[in-house]
Amino acid sequence: MNWRGEISRFSCYELRLLLSLKKANKTPDWGRLAHLVQALLFDVFGTVVDWRTSLIAQFERFGKTHNLRPGSTDGGNLGWPGLVDDWRAAYQPSMDAVRSGARPWTTLEQLHRESLDNLLPKYGLGDMSGAHREELVRGWHFLDPWPDSVAGLTRLKRKFIIGTLSNGGLRLLTDMAKYAGLPWDTILCSDLFRHYKPDPKVYLGAAELLDTAPENVMLVAAHNYDLAAARKHGYKTAFVARPTEYGPRQQKDFKAESDWDYGAKDFGELAEMLGA
Amino acid sequence: MNWRGEISRFSCYELRLLLSLKKANKTPDWGRLAHLVQALLFDVFGTVVDWRTSLIAQFERFGKTHNLRPGSTDGGNLGWPGLVDDWRAAYQPSMDAVRSGARPWTTLEQLHRESLDNLLPKYGLGDMSGAHREELVRGWHFLDPWPDSVAGLTRLKRKFIIGTLSNGGLRLLTDMAKYAGLPWDTILCSDLFRHYKPDPKVYLGAAELLDTAPENVMLVAAHNYDLAAARKHGYKTAFVARPTEYGPRQQKDFKAESDWDYGAKDFGELAEMLGA
Repeated sequence: MNWRGEISRFSCYELRLLLSLKKANKTPDWGRLAHLVQALLFDVFGTVVDWRTSLIAQFERFGKTHNLRPGSTDGGNLGWPGLVDDWRAAYQPSMDAVRSGARPWTTLEQLHRESLDNLLPKYGLGDMSGAHREELVRGWHFLDPWPDSVAGLTRLKRKFIIGTLSNGGLRLLTDMAKYAGLPWDTILCSDLFRHYKPDPKVYLGAAELLDTAPENVMLVAAHNYDLAAARKHGYKTAFVARPTEYGPRQQKDFKAESDWDYGAKDFGELAEMLGA
Repeated sequence: MNWRGEISRFSCYELRLLLSLKKANKTPDWGRLAHLVQALLFDVFGTVVDWRTSLIAQFERFGKTHNLRPGSTDGGNLGWPGLVDDWRAAYQPSMDAVRSGARPWTTLEQLHRESLDNLLPKYGLGDMSGAHREELVRGWHFLDPWPDSVAGLTRLKRKFIIGTLSNGGLRLLTDMAKYAGLPWDTILCSDLFRHYKPDPKVYLGAAELLDTAPENVMLVAAHNYDLAAARKHGYKTAFVARPTEYGPRQQKDFKAESDWDYGAKDFGELAEMLGA
Protein backbone atom coordinates (compact mmCIF):
# COMPACT_ATOMS: atom_id res chain seq x y z
CA MET A 1 0.00 0.00 0.00
CA ASN A 2 1.13 3.53 -0.80
CA TRP A 3 2.46 5.73 2.02
CA ARG A 4 1.61 9.04 0.37
CA GLY A 5 -1.85 7.89 -0.61
CA GLU A 6 -2.60 6.69 2.88
CA ILE A 7 -1.01 9.44 4.89
CA SER A 8 -3.64 12.13 4.34
CA ARG A 9 -6.13 10.05 6.32
CA PHE A 10 -4.23 10.28 9.60
CA SER A 11 -4.12 12.65 12.55
CA CYS A 12 -1.00 14.27 14.02
CA TYR A 13 -0.74 11.53 16.62
CA GLU A 14 -1.03 8.82 14.00
CA LEU A 15 1.52 10.54 11.76
CA ARG A 16 4.05 10.63 14.58
CA LEU A 17 3.51 6.94 15.16
CA LEU A 18 3.88 6.21 11.43
CA LEU A 19 7.09 8.22 11.24
CA SER A 20 8.55 6.33 14.19
CA LEU A 21 7.75 3.03 12.45
CA LYS A 22 9.35 4.33 9.25
CA LYS A 23 12.50 5.36 11.13
CA ALA A 24 12.71 1.91 12.68
CA ASN A 25 12.33 0.41 9.18
CA LYS A 26 9.18 -1.38 10.20
CA THR A 27 6.23 -1.72 7.87
CA PRO A 28 3.21 0.04 9.27
CA ASP A 29 0.27 -2.24 9.97
CA TRP A 30 -2.29 -0.25 7.99
CA GLY A 31 -5.24 -2.31 9.09
CA ARG A 32 -4.43 -1.50 12.68
CA LEU A 33 -3.47 2.11 12.06
CA ALA A 34 -6.63 2.83 10.11
CA HIS A 35 -8.54 2.11 13.27
CA LEU A 36 -6.44 4.08 15.68
CA VAL A 37 -8.10 5.23 18.82
CA GLN A 38 -9.97 8.54 19.04
CA ALA A 39 -11.48 8.08 22.49
CA LEU A 40 -10.48 6.29 25.68
CA LEU A 41 -13.43 5.28 27.84
CA PHE A 42 -12.81 4.24 31.43
CA ASP A 43 -14.56 1.94 33.78
CA VAL A 44 -14.75 3.97 37.00
CA PHE A 45 -15.46 2.01 40.22
CA GLY A 46 -12.20 0.19 40.93
CA THR A 47 -10.43 1.29 37.75
CA VAL A 48 -10.28 5.05 38.42
CA VAL A 49 -11.36 5.31 42.06
CA ASP A 50 -10.62 3.27 45.17
CA TRP A 51 -14.22 2.84 46.35
CA ARG A 52 -13.36 0.49 49.23
CA THR A 53 -10.83 2.62 51.10
CA SER A 54 -12.87 5.76 50.43
CA LEU A 55 -16.16 4.36 51.73
CA ILE A 56 -14.66 2.74 54.82
CA ALA A 57 -13.05 6.06 55.79
CA GLN A 58 -16.25 8.02 55.06
CA PHE A 59 -18.50 5.64 56.95
CA GLU A 60 -16.18 5.51 59.97
CA ARG A 61 -16.45 9.32 60.17
CA PHE A 62 -20.21 9.05 59.68
CA GLY A 63 -20.42 6.47 62.49
CA LYS A 64 -18.48 8.68 64.90
CA THR A 65 -20.57 11.75 64.08
CA HIS A 66 -23.89 9.95 64.54
CA ASN A 67 -22.74 7.48 67.20
CA LEU A 68 -23.64 4.48 65.08
CA ARG A 69 -21.59 1.28 65.11
CA PRO A 70 -22.36 -1.73 62.95
CA GLY A 71 -22.14 -5.06 64.72
CA SER A 72 -22.79 -8.33 62.95
CA THR A 73 -25.70 -10.44 64.18
CA ASP A 74 -24.55 -13.59 62.41
CA GLY A 75 -20.99 -13.87 63.65
CA GLY A 76 -19.58 -12.87 60.24
CA ASN A 77 -17.91 -9.62 59.17
CA LEU A 78 -17.95 -6.80 61.65
CA GLY A 79 -17.82 -3.06 61.41
CA TRP A 80 -17.90 -0.65 58.52
CA PRO A 81 -15.41 -2.62 56.37
CA GLY A 82 -17.76 -5.61 56.50
CA LEU A 83 -20.74 -3.47 55.55
CA VAL A 84 -18.84 -1.90 52.64
CA ASP A 85 -17.69 -5.30 51.37
CA ASP A 86 -21.17 -6.78 51.68
CA TRP A 87 -22.69 -3.76 49.97
CA ARG A 88 -20.30 -4.09 47.03
CA ALA A 89 -20.92 -7.85 46.89
CA ALA A 90 -24.59 -7.05 46.27
CA TYR A 91 -23.66 -4.78 43.31
CA GLN A 92 -23.50 -7.27 40.43
CA PRO A 93 -26.50 -9.35 41.60
CA SER A 94 -28.60 -6.19 41.97
CA MET A 95 -27.91 -5.23 38.33
CA ASP A 96 -28.54 -8.79 37.11
CA ALA A 97 -32.30 -8.43 37.59
CA VAL A 98 -32.21 -5.38 35.29
CA ARG A 99 -29.80 -6.99 32.81
CA SER A 100 -32.01 -10.06 32.45
CA GLY A 101 -35.11 -7.95 31.93
CA ALA A 102 -36.71 -9.41 35.08
CA ARG A 103 -37.22 -5.83 36.28
CA PRO A 104 -37.47 -2.62 34.27
CA TRP A 105 -34.70 -0.02 34.12
CA THR A 106 -33.73 0.95 37.67
CA THR A 107 -31.02 3.49 38.48
CA LEU A 108 -27.89 2.52 40.39
CA GLU A 109 -28.95 5.05 43.03
CA GLN A 110 -32.08 3.01 43.66
CA LEU A 111 -30.22 -0.33 43.57
CA HIS A 112 -27.64 1.00 46.05
CA ARG A 113 -30.45 2.04 48.39
CA GLU A 114 -32.24 -1.31 48.17
CA SER A 115 -29.02 -3.25 48.82
CA LEU A 116 -28.28 -1.06 51.85
CA ASP A 117 -31.80 -1.50 53.20
CA ASN A 118 -31.38 -5.27 52.91
CA LEU A 119 -28.03 -5.23 54.72
CA LEU A 120 -28.62 -2.89 57.65
CA PRO A 121 -30.58 -5.34 59.84
CA LYS A 122 -27.70 -7.86 59.63
CA TYR A 123 -25.48 -5.16 61.15
CA GLY A 124 -27.95 -4.22 63.87
CA LEU A 125 -28.72 -0.93 62.13
CA GLY A 126 -32.22 -1.76 60.91
CA ASP A 127 -33.66 1.34 62.57
CA MET A 128 -31.37 3.83 60.76
CA SER A 129 -33.28 6.91 59.56
CA GLY A 130 -34.05 7.54 55.90
CA ALA A 131 -31.84 10.67 55.89
CA HIS A 132 -28.87 8.67 57.20
CA ARG A 133 -29.44 5.96 54.62
CA GLU A 134 -29.45 8.64 51.89
CA GLU A 135 -26.19 10.00 53.27
CA LEU A 136 -24.55 6.58 52.97
CA VAL A 137 -25.91 6.07 49.43
CA ARG A 138 -24.56 9.48 48.42
CA GLY A 139 -21.17 8.39 49.73
CA TRP A 140 -20.72 6.54 46.43
CA HIS A 141 -20.61 9.94 44.66
CA PHE A 142 -17.51 11.03 46.56
CA LEU A 143 -14.74 8.48 46.10
CA ASP A 144 -11.00 9.11 46.06
CA PRO A 145 -8.98 8.35 42.93
CA TRP A 146 -6.05 5.93 42.86
CA PRO A 147 -2.80 7.88 43.25
CA ASP A 148 -1.99 7.73 39.51
CA SER A 149 -5.49 8.47 38.17
CA VAL A 150 -5.63 12.26 37.91
CA ALA A 151 -2.09 12.72 36.56
CA GLY A 152 -2.54 9.88 34.05
CA LEU A 153 -5.93 11.12 32.83
CA THR A 154 -4.54 14.64 32.47
CA ARG A 155 -1.79 13.30 30.19
CA LEU A 156 -4.14 11.07 28.19
CA LYS A 157 -6.59 13.97 27.71
CA ARG A 158 -4.00 15.85 25.65
CA LYS A 159 -4.09 13.16 22.94
CA PHE A 160 -7.52 11.57 23.18
CA ILE A 161 -11.10 12.23 24.12
CA ILE A 162 -11.35 10.76 27.61
CA GLY A 163 -14.66 9.74 29.12
CA THR A 164 -16.33 7.43 31.58
CA LEU A 165 -18.12 4.24 30.58
CA SER A 166 -19.57 3.29 33.92
CA ASN A 167 -22.55 1.57 35.46
CA GLY A 168 -22.80 4.61 37.74
CA GLY A 169 -25.31 7.33 36.89
CA LEU A 170 -24.58 10.70 35.29
CA ARG A 171 -25.13 12.68 38.48
CA LEU A 172 -22.98 10.32 40.54
CA LEU A 173 -20.14 10.49 37.99
CA THR A 174 -20.43 14.28 37.68
CA ASP A 175 -20.31 14.75 41.46
CA MET A 176 -17.34 12.38 41.62
CA ALA A 177 -15.42 14.20 38.89
CA LYS A 178 -15.85 17.53 40.71
CA TYR A 179 -14.88 15.99 44.06
CA ALA A 180 -11.88 14.01 42.81
CA GLY A 181 -10.71 16.38 40.06
CA LEU A 182 -11.18 13.86 37.24
CA PRO A 183 -10.78 15.84 33.99
CA TRP A 184 -13.33 13.98 31.82
CA ASP A 185 -14.20 15.36 28.42
CA THR A 186 -17.53 13.58 28.51
CA ILE A 187 -19.57 11.38 30.83
CA LEU A 188 -21.03 8.24 29.28
CA CYS A 189 -22.88 5.90 31.60
CA SER A 190 -25.65 3.44 32.26
CA ASP A 191 -28.52 5.89 32.58
CA LEU A 192 -27.91 7.36 29.10
CA PHE A 193 -28.62 3.92 27.68
CA ARG A 194 -30.86 2.54 30.41
CA HIS A 195 -28.77 -0.61 30.38
CA TYR A 196 -25.89 -1.88 32.49
CA LYS A 197 -22.57 -3.20 31.21
CA PRO A 198 -21.94 -5.75 29.80
CA ASP A 199 -25.10 -5.12 27.75
CA PRO A 200 -24.03 -4.45 24.12
CA LYS A 201 -26.18 -1.29 24.03
CA VAL A 202 -23.77 0.45 26.42
CA TYR A 203 -20.63 -0.13 24.31
CA LEU A 204 -22.34 0.39 20.94
CA GLY A 205 -24.38 3.36 22.18
CA ALA A 206 -21.24 5.10 23.44
CA ALA A 207 -19.48 4.65 20.07
CA GLU A 208 -22.56 6.00 18.31
CA LEU A 209 -22.64 9.11 20.52
CA LEU A 210 -18.93 9.56 19.78
CA ASP A 211 -19.88 9.36 16.08
CA THR A 212 -17.21 6.78 15.36
CA ALA A 213 -16.77 3.05 14.86
CA PRO A 214 -16.25 0.90 17.99
CA GLU A 215 -12.78 0.09 16.56
CA ASN A 216 -11.79 3.71 17.26
CA VAL A 217 -12.72 3.50 20.95
CA MET A 218 -10.62 1.84 23.65
CA LEU A 219 -11.99 0.69 26.99
CA VAL A 220 -9.64 0.97 29.95
CA ALA A 221 -10.68 -1.27 32.82
CA ALA A 222 -9.40 -3.26 35.78
CA HIS A 223 -11.98 -6.00 35.13
CA ASN A 224 -11.51 -8.72 32.56
CA TYR A 225 -15.27 -9.32 32.05
CA ASP A 226 -15.76 -5.69 30.98
CA LEU A 227 -12.87 -5.81 28.50
CA ALA A 228 -14.16 -9.09 27.05
CA ALA A 229 -17.54 -7.50 26.33
CA ALA A 230 -15.93 -4.35 24.91
CA ARG A 231 -13.72 -6.41 22.56
CA LYS A 232 -16.68 -8.51 21.47
CA HIS A 233 -18.34 -5.31 20.26
CA GLY A 234 -15.29 -4.05 18.43
CA TYR A 235 -13.51 -1.90 21.02
CA LYS A 236 -9.78 -1.77 21.56
CA THR A 237 -8.89 -2.84 25.12
CA ALA A 238 -6.46 -1.85 27.87
CA PHE A 239 -6.10 -3.61 31.22
CA VAL A 240 -4.82 -1.81 34.30
CA ALA A 241 -4.51 -4.06 37.35
CA ARG A 242 -5.94 -2.80 40.65
CA PRO A 243 -5.00 -5.74 42.90
CA THR A 244 -6.15 -4.09 46.15
CA GLU A 245 -9.57 -2.99 44.87
CA TYR A 246 -11.51 -5.56 46.92
CA GLY A 247 -9.12 -5.66 49.88
CA PRO A 248 -8.68 -9.09 51.45
CA ARG A 249 -11.76 -10.39 49.59
CA GLN A 250 -10.23 -9.89 46.13
CA GLN A 251 -10.26 -13.18 44.20
CA LYS A 252 -9.84 -12.16 40.57
CA ASP A 253 -8.59 -9.52 38.13
CA PHE A 254 -5.06 -9.66 39.53
CA LYS A 255 -3.86 -9.85 35.94
CA ALA A 256 -4.93 -9.79 32.31
CA GLU A 257 -6.83 -12.96 31.40
CA SER A 258 -6.58 -12.40 27.66
CA ASP A 259 -4.32 -10.70 25.11
CA TRP A 260 -5.81 -7.24 25.58
CA ASP A 261 -4.33 -4.62 23.24
CA TYR A 262 -2.53 -2.92 26.10
CA GLY A 263 -1.66 -3.82 29.67
CA ALA A 264 -0.22 -1.27 32.10
CA LYS A 265 0.51 -1.12 35.81
CA ASP A 266 -1.17 2.29 36.09
CA PHE A 267 -2.49 5.22 34.02
CA GLY A 268 0.97 6.80 33.84
CA GLU A 269 2.39 3.72 32.14
CA LEU A 270 -0.62 3.60 29.81
CA ALA A 271 -0.03 7.25 28.83
CA GLU A 272 3.61 6.35 28.12
CA MET A 273 2.60 3.43 25.91
CA LEU A 274 0.14 5.55 23.97
CA GLY A 275 2.60 8.40 23.46
CA ALA A 276 0.53 10.86 25.51
CA MET B 1 -40.87 29.73 59.03
CA ASN B 2 -38.20 28.43 61.38
CA TRP B 3 -34.53 29.04 60.57
CA ARG B 4 -33.24 26.04 62.50
CA GLY B 5 -35.86 23.71 61.10
CA GLU B 6 -35.14 24.77 57.55
CA ILE B 7 -31.40 25.00 57.70
CA SER B 8 -30.59 21.30 57.63
CA ARG B 9 -31.97 21.08 54.10
CA PHE B 10 -29.31 23.32 52.56
CA SER B 11 -25.88 22.88 51.06
CA CYS B 12 -22.74 24.78 52.04
CA TYR B 13 -23.30 27.26 49.24
CA GLU B 14 -26.87 27.86 50.28
CA LEU B 15 -25.88 28.24 53.93
CA ARG B 16 -23.35 30.92 53.01
CA LEU B 17 -26.05 32.77 51.11
CA LEU B 18 -28.47 32.43 54.03
CA LEU B 19 -25.90 33.73 56.49
CA SER B 20 -25.21 36.75 54.29
CA LEU B 21 -28.94 37.52 54.23
CA LYS B 22 -29.11 37.13 58.02
CA LYS B 23 -26.17 39.50 58.50
CA ALA B 24 -27.86 42.06 56.28
CA ASN B 25 -31.03 41.65 58.38
CA LYS B 26 -32.98 40.55 55.34
CA THR B 27 -35.62 37.85 55.55
CA PRO B 28 -34.63 34.88 53.41
CA ASP B 29 -37.11 34.07 50.66
CA TRP B 30 -37.58 30.43 51.58
CA GLY B 31 -39.66 29.55 48.56
CA ARG B 32 -36.88 30.72 46.33
CA LEU B 33 -34.05 29.33 48.43
CA ALA B 34 -35.64 25.91 48.67
CA HIS B 35 -35.18 25.65 44.93
CA LEU B 36 -31.68 26.93 44.69
CA VAL B 37 -29.74 25.96 41.65
CA GLN B 38 -27.49 22.88 41.58
CA ALA B 39 -26.64 22.93 37.88
CA LEU B 40 -26.27 25.59 35.21
CA LEU B 41 -26.93 24.31 31.69
CA PHE B 42 -25.87 26.42 28.73
CA ASP B 43 -27.14 26.80 25.25
CA VAL B 44 -23.96 26.66 23.15
CA PHE B 45 -24.23 28.01 19.56
CA GLY B 46 -24.41 31.78 19.99
CA THR B 47 -24.51 31.73 23.80
CA VAL B 48 -21.05 30.26 24.49
CA VAL B 49 -19.39 30.36 21.06
CA ASP B 50 -19.36 32.90 18.24
CA TRP B 51 -20.20 30.50 15.40
CA ARG B 52 -20.48 33.22 12.72
CA THR B 53 -17.08 34.87 13.08
CA SER B 54 -15.42 31.47 13.61
CA LEU B 55 -16.92 29.84 10.53
CA ILE B 56 -16.30 32.80 8.21
CA ALA B 57 -12.62 32.84 9.22
CA GLN B 58 -12.32 29.04 8.87
CA PHE B 59 -14.03 28.91 5.50
CA GLU B 60 -11.98 31.80 4.11
CA ARG B 61 -8.84 29.82 5.00
CA PHE B 62 -10.42 26.69 3.49
CA GLY B 63 -11.22 28.62 0.27
CA LYS B 64 -7.66 29.91 -0.07
CA THR B 65 -6.18 26.46 0.55
CA HIS B 66 -8.39 24.74 -1.99
CA ASN B 67 -8.79 27.67 -4.38
CA LEU B 68 -12.56 27.72 -3.99
CA ARG B 69 -14.57 30.94 -4.02
CA PRO B 70 -18.33 31.08 -3.54
CA GLY B 71 -20.15 33.40 -5.94
CA SER B 72 -23.90 33.87 -5.82
CA THR B 73 -25.90 32.85 -8.87
CA ASP B 74 -29.04 34.74 -7.82
CA GLY B 75 -27.58 38.19 -7.20
CA GLY B 76 -27.97 37.79 -3.43
CA ASN B 77 -25.31 37.32 -0.76
CA LEU B 78 -21.81 36.72 -1.93
CA GLY B 79 -18.81 34.97 -0.51
CA TRP B 80 -18.26 32.87 2.58
CA PRO B 81 -20.19 35.21 4.94
CA GLY B 82 -23.27 34.75 2.75
CA LEU B 83 -22.87 30.97 2.75
CA VAL B 84 -22.41 30.89 6.54
CA ASP B 85 -25.49 33.09 7.09
CA ASP B 86 -27.61 31.02 4.68
CA TRP B 87 -26.40 27.81 6.29
CA ARG B 88 -27.38 29.02 9.75
CA ALA B 89 -30.73 30.28 8.41
CA ALA B 90 -31.46 26.67 7.38
CA TYR B 91 -30.75 25.46 10.96
CA GLN B 92 -34.14 25.88 12.64
CA PRO B 93 -36.18 24.76 9.57
CA SER B 94 -34.02 21.64 9.22
CA MET B 95 -34.80 20.65 12.83
CA ASP B 96 -38.50 21.44 12.43
CA ALA B 97 -39.09 18.34 10.33
CA VAL B 98 -37.68 16.24 13.19
CA ARG B 99 -39.49 18.25 15.89
CA SER B 100 -42.84 17.78 14.16
CA GLY B 101 -42.28 14.06 13.74
CA ALA B 102 -42.42 14.40 9.93
CA ARG B 103 -39.05 12.64 9.82
CA PRO B 104 -37.47 10.28 12.35
CA TRP B 105 -34.57 11.28 14.60
CA THR B 106 -31.76 12.69 12.47
CA THR B 107 -28.49 13.96 13.90
CA LEU B 108 -27.43 17.59 13.55
CA GLU B 109 -24.38 16.31 11.65
CA GLN B 110 -26.69 14.90 8.99
CA LEU B 111 -28.92 18.01 8.94
CA HIS B 112 -25.85 20.25 8.57
CA ARG B 113 -24.68 18.16 5.62
CA GLU B 114 -28.08 18.22 3.90
CA SER B 115 -28.41 21.99 4.30
CA LEU B 116 -24.92 22.49 2.88
CA ASP B 117 -25.66 20.20 -0.06
CA ASN B 118 -28.79 22.27 -0.79
CA LEU B 119 -26.89 25.57 -0.64
CA LEU B 120 -23.70 24.85 -2.60
CA PRO B 121 -25.24 25.08 -6.11
CA LYS B 122 -26.55 28.59 -5.32
CA TYR B 123 -22.94 29.60 -4.65
CA GLY B 124 -21.60 27.96 -7.77
CA LEU B 125 -19.96 25.21 -5.71
CA GLY B 126 -22.25 22.35 -6.67
CA ASP B 127 -19.35 20.18 -7.77
CA MET B 128 -17.49 20.34 -4.42
CA SER B 129 -16.11 16.93 -3.41
CA GLY B 130 -17.57 14.88 -0.59
CA ALA B 131 -14.36 15.21 1.43
CA HIS B 132 -14.49 19.00 1.21
CA ARG B 133 -18.15 19.03 2.21
CA GLU B 134 -17.27 16.91 5.26
CA GLU B 135 -14.50 19.36 6.12
CA LEU B 136 -16.98 22.25 6.12
CA VAL B 137 -19.53 20.28 8.19
CA ARG B 138 -16.82 19.47 10.73
CA GLY B 139 -16.06 23.19 10.95
CA TRP B 140 -19.06 23.43 13.31
CA HIS B 141 -17.09 21.35 15.86
CA PHE B 142 -14.34 23.96 16.16
CA LEU B 143 -15.84 27.31 17.10
CA ASP B 144 -14.23 30.06 19.14
CA PRO B 145 -15.78 31.12 22.44
CA TRP B 146 -16.93 34.68 23.17
CA PRO B 147 -14.15 36.54 25.03
CA ASP B 148 -15.87 36.14 28.45
CA SER B 149 -16.94 32.48 28.06
CA VAL B 150 -13.99 30.48 29.38
CA ALA B 151 -13.22 32.75 32.34
CA GLY B 152 -16.90 32.98 33.29
CA LEU B 153 -17.48 29.22 33.04
CA THR B 154 -14.36 28.56 35.10
CA ARG B 155 -15.74 30.76 37.89
CA LEU B 156 -19.24 29.28 37.70
CA LYS B 157 -17.82 25.73 37.80
CA ARG B 158 -16.50 26.35 41.32
CA LYS B 159 -20.06 26.71 42.67
CA PHE B 160 -22.25 24.73 40.30
CA ILE B 161 -22.33 21.75 38.01
CA ILE B 162 -21.91 23.33 34.57
CA GLY B 163 -23.00 21.55 31.41
CA THR B 164 -24.21 22.05 27.88
CA LEU B 165 -27.86 21.80 26.84
CA SER B 166 -27.45 22.08 23.11
CA ASN B 167 -29.00 20.92 19.87
CA GLY B 168 -25.47 19.98 18.84
CA GLY B 169 -24.40 16.34 19.15
CA LEU B 170 -22.19 14.84 21.86
CA ARG B 171 -19.16 14.42 19.58
CA LEU B 172 -19.46 17.94 18.21
CA LEU B 173 -19.72 19.41 21.73
CA THR B 174 -16.84 17.27 23.01
CA ASP B 175 -14.58 18.30 20.12
CA MET B 176 -15.58 21.93 20.69
CA ALA B 177 -14.83 21.79 24.42
CA LYS B 178 -11.35 20.41 23.76
CA TYR B 179 -10.69 22.97 21.01
CA ALA B 180 -12.05 26.00 22.87
CA GLY B 181 -11.08 25.00 26.43
CA LEU B 182 -14.66 24.93 27.73
CA PRO B 183 -14.47 23.33 31.20
CA TRP B 184 -17.81 21.45 31.16
CA ASP B 185 -18.59 19.02 33.95
CA THR B 186 -21.00 17.17 31.71
CA ILE B 187 -22.29 17.25 28.14
CA LEU B 188 -26.06 17.09 27.73
CA CYS B 189 -27.41 17.40 24.22
CA SER B 190 -29.95 16.50 21.58
CA ASP B 191 -28.62 13.07 20.68
CA LEU B 192 -28.91 11.79 24.26
CA PHE B 193 -32.65 12.42 24.04
CA ARG B 194 -33.12 12.08 20.28
CA HIS B 195 -35.12 15.29 20.36
CA TYR B 196 -34.28 18.92 19.64
CA LYS B 197 -34.99 21.89 21.90
CA PRO B 198 -37.58 23.21 22.57
CA ASP B 199 -39.00 19.66 22.90
CA PRO B 200 -39.89 19.10 26.59
CA LYS B 201 -37.98 15.80 26.61
CA VAL B 202 -34.68 17.67 26.35
CA TYR B 203 -35.24 19.89 29.43
CA LEU B 204 -36.94 17.20 31.51
CA GLY B 205 -34.51 14.48 30.41
CA ALA B 206 -31.54 16.62 31.45
CA ALA B 207 -33.01 17.25 34.92
CA GLU B 208 -33.68 13.52 35.28
CA LEU B 209 -30.07 12.65 34.39
CA LEU B 210 -28.95 15.26 36.94
CA ASP B 211 -31.20 13.43 39.45
CA THR B 212 -32.87 16.63 40.53
CA ALA B 213 -36.05 18.65 40.01
CA PRO B 214 -36.15 21.06 37.03
CA GLU B 215 -36.46 23.86 39.63
CA ASN B 216 -32.87 23.15 40.66
CA VAL B 217 -31.53 23.63 37.14
CA MET B 218 -30.96 26.97 35.41
CA LEU B 219 -30.69 27.42 31.67
CA VAL B 220 -28.33 30.14 30.48
CA ALA B 221 -29.10 31.24 26.93
CA ALA B 222 -28.92 34.15 24.52
CA HIS B 223 -32.24 33.14 22.95
CA ASN B 224 -35.60 34.03 24.45
CA TYR B 225 -37.44 31.07 22.86
CA ASP B 226 -35.12 28.61 24.61
CA LEU B 227 -35.56 30.28 28.01
CA ALA B 228 -39.35 30.34 27.55
CA ALA B 229 -39.39 26.58 26.99
CA ALA B 230 -37.02 25.97 29.91
CA ARG B 231 -39.20 28.04 32.27
CA LYS B 232 -42.34 26.27 31.08
CA HIS B 233 -40.79 23.01 32.24
CA GLY B 234 -39.72 24.37 35.62
CA TYR B 235 -36.16 25.57 35.03
CA LYS B 236 -34.69 28.77 36.42
CA THR B 237 -33.58 31.09 33.62
CA ALA B 238 -30.71 33.46 32.86
CA PHE B 239 -30.44 35.63 29.74
CA VAL B 240 -27.08 36.78 28.39
CA ALA B 241 -27.35 39.04 25.35
CA ARG B 242 -25.14 38.28 22.33
CA PRO B 243 -26.19 41.13 20.04
CA THR B 244 -23.61 40.39 17.33
CA GLU B 245 -24.33 36.66 17.05
CA TYR B 246 -26.03 36.92 13.65
CA GLY B 247 -23.97 39.85 12.35
CA PRO B 248 -25.90 42.33 10.20
CA ARG B 249 -28.78 39.84 9.84
CA GLN B 250 -29.60 39.81 13.58
CA GLN B 251 -33.23 40.76 14.14
CA LYS B 252 -34.04 39.50 17.63
CA ASP B 253 -32.67 38.52 21.04
CA PHE B 254 -31.08 41.93 21.57
CA LYS B 255 -32.62 41.91 25.02
CA ALA B 256 -34.64 39.87 27.51
CA GLU B 257 -38.24 39.57 26.36
CA SER B 258 -39.53 38.34 29.72
CA ASP B 259 -38.68 38.62 33.42
CA TRP B 260 -36.07 35.87 33.38
CA ASP B 261 -34.61 35.11 36.81
CA TYR B 262 -31.28 36.66 35.86
CA GLY B 263 -30.03 38.91 33.09
CA ALA B 264 -26.33 39.63 32.59
CA LYS B 265 -24.19 41.28 29.96
CA ASP B 266 -21.76 38.36 29.96
CA PHE B 267 -20.73 35.24 31.91
CA GLY B 268 -18.50 37.27 34.22
CA GLU B 269 -21.43 39.39 35.36
CA LEU B 270 -23.55 36.25 35.77
CA ALA B 271 -20.85 34.70 37.98
CA GLU B 272 -20.83 37.90 40.05
CA MET B 273 -24.63 37.80 40.47
CA LEU B 274 -24.54 34.15 41.53
CA GLY B 275 -21.71 34.65 44.02
CA ALA B 276 -19.33 32.39 42.09
